[in-house]
Amino acid sequence: MQEMIRVAVDAMGGDNAPDEIVKGAVEAVGLRRDIKVFLVGKEERIREKLKAYSYGEEQIEVVEASEVIETAEPPVAAIRKKKDSSIVVGLKLVKEGKADAFVSAGSSGAVLVGGQLLVGRIKGVERPPLAPLIPTAKGVALLIDCGANVDARASHLVQFAKMGSIYMEHVVGVSNPKVALVNIGAEEEKGNALVKETFPLLKECRDINFIGSIEAREIPHGQADVIVCEAFVGNVILKLYEGVGAVLVSKIKDGMKTSLRSKIGGLLVKPALKETLKSFDATEYGGAPLLGLKGLVVKTHGSSKAQEVKNSILQCVTFKEQQIHDKIKENIIREEG
Amino acid sequence: MQEMIRVAVDAMGGDNAPDEIVKGAVEAVGLRRDIKVFLVGKEERIREKLKAYSYGEEQIEVVEASEVIETAEPPVAAIRKKKDSSIVVGLKLVKEGKADAFVSAGSSGAVLVGGQLLVGRIKGVERPPLAPLIPTAKGVALLIDCGANVDARASHLVQFAKMGSIYMEHVVGVSNPKVALVNIGAEEEKGNALVKETFPLLKECRDINFIGSIEAREIPHGQADVIVCEAFVGNVILKLYEGVGAVLVSKIKDGMKTSLRSKIGGLLVKPALKETLKSFDATEYGGAPLLGLKGLVVKTHGSSKAQEVKNSILQCVTFKEQQIHDKIKENIIREEG
Repeated sequence: MQEMIRVAVDAMGGDNAPDEIVKGAVEAVGLRRDIKVFLVGKEERIREKLKAYSYGEEQIEVVEASEVIETAEPPVAAIRKKKDSSIVVGLKLVKEGKADAFVSAGSSGAVLVGGQLLVGRIKGVERPPLAPLIPTAKGVALLIDCGANVDARASHLVQFAKMGSIYMEHVVGVSNPKVALVNIGAEEEKGNALVKETFPLLKECRDINFIGSIEAREIPHGQADVIVCEAFVGNVILKLYEGVGAVLVSKIKDGMKTSLRSKIGGLLVKPALKETLKSFDATEYGGAPLLGLKGLVVKTHGSSKAQEVKNSILQCVTFKEQQIHDKIKENIIREEG
Repeated sequence: MQEMIRVAVDAMGGDNAPDEIVKGAVEAVGLRRDIKVFLVGKEERIREKLKAYSYGEEQIEVVEASEVIETAEPPVAAIRKKKDSSIVVGLKLVKEGKADAFVSAGSSGAVLVGGQLLVGRIKGVERPPLAPLIPTAKGVALLIDCGANVDARASHLVQFAKMGSIYMEHVVGVSNPKVALVNIGAEEEKGNALVKETFPLLKECRDINFIGSIEAREIPHGQADVIVCEAFVGNVILKLYEGVGAVLVSKIKDGMKTSLRSKIGGLLVKPALKETLKSFDATEYGGAPLLGLKGLVVKTHGSSKAQEVKNSILQCVTFKEQQIHDKIKENIIREEG
């Protein structure tokens, strides 16, 4: 019998749960016979939604979880208290080896904390980074770390660079990905204490293609494939991408309403503009992996629809097929030894 | 006799020196009889340019400086070695009390380092922050600090908040400016060690209107008037603003070329679009003050043209008229006492 790739999915997480989550899961299993999805959450509601679809019965299993962790809840307390929440139950499936991966559009904090507490880190990995893909002029780049672990050390950033490089090469498919360190200037002597300590360590890494410092201005131009930074800076980059994009787009729309001429022009460019803006929307590339854990945990955007849920499940499949977990383990152990 | 406001201007700094610098100086003195500009740089070249204009002879004085600091030069070494550079000579005019302010479109690093070394800090000011204005959906916000001083302490950030608030209120004209601390979440318990230490200190400040944390996503929406952060994060914000804006605009332009329909539309919206994008271009708000020094030092964008140079000179006039220097001094001393 063919080996199944088993993905636990938080059916209760995000703005469009459970409808879009269930739909995405059905779409994913429809693409490949070797995917099995555990839909974790309120069984009755999930079964109600599943009725609308036809799919391979053995490919979707509903796992009851009576509680839901809300976005506003303090993550650590929520993970400890709500033992029967979809996030805790889903993560435990990974921990117990019943699932290879867990996907959630729910509380970022709870997924991050829960991933570390429940699934656990690969031996040797100091910190599991959250690594979303962000759009660039040339495609996408992996921004690592955007997680909840602030005040990182140089050794953490070196591991981020290695794990990010493995992910970008084998999951996203960029060969020999260019790795850069976020800095406030291109020269080696620039930067804060953390960057100055990290730079020479990255230069010494023979298993990554380190191209040096990258200034924030160059990130959207796509100068590097793996953007290494500590989580506070990563969070600022990710959120400012969204903020500047959103405000600029709304300004452009307002600008097109200033005269009759521009109004007519606006109507004509609208479809093309929509496509363009979509390709540069940071929220479109949902599915950020939390790397370095004993199983894959993927956080998709809270506003994820079926398409993003499906893509996140497929991302888990590639992750498993490419044995990223083993590659990270080997890479970290090689360094340690 | 009327008291003159004396501004030293680096005639050799930036991409468009000396032509646009000289033009900007002439335009500034043409607006007000009480402005005196010292054009610092290669006398012969400056005089050659000045010939093209008519202006009040007593309002512009050329001060010879035979050397130029290039952008690529390491700042500290450049300031020490090139004693007869336009930046060193200009800053010395401020130090010696011969000028009230110094404006340069030249090397940021050299202006920052030179400002501290040559002009010196106001007693009690721990670090002089560089504070550019960035565009927002509601107008502009002051981003403080974007300077060369990384690895700031909480006490520095508190002073940045105060100095930024004074500047925003009295120079930019925003009454009771809203001050926010850049953070990775809105809750008080979020953040890295620096932010967690700074937050309660800002809450205690009675002389600023502290509204709490701000996530990077909200900055472009204009939720706060003074955005407080340490220099590394400030630099990332400023440069990412530019980068995301530039790439998005070029994508939009490309998008408009995809079909005949969108091409025609593109032609119609072009003028309106141009205006809109200009209003959201971070480089348009040149003239970042280096606050907390014994005289005003203003760094304008390297690509500044006459208009930005003129505006920067006028900014120095407002700074002097509003006695910002005294206000900062009083505020810092009050706290110390």
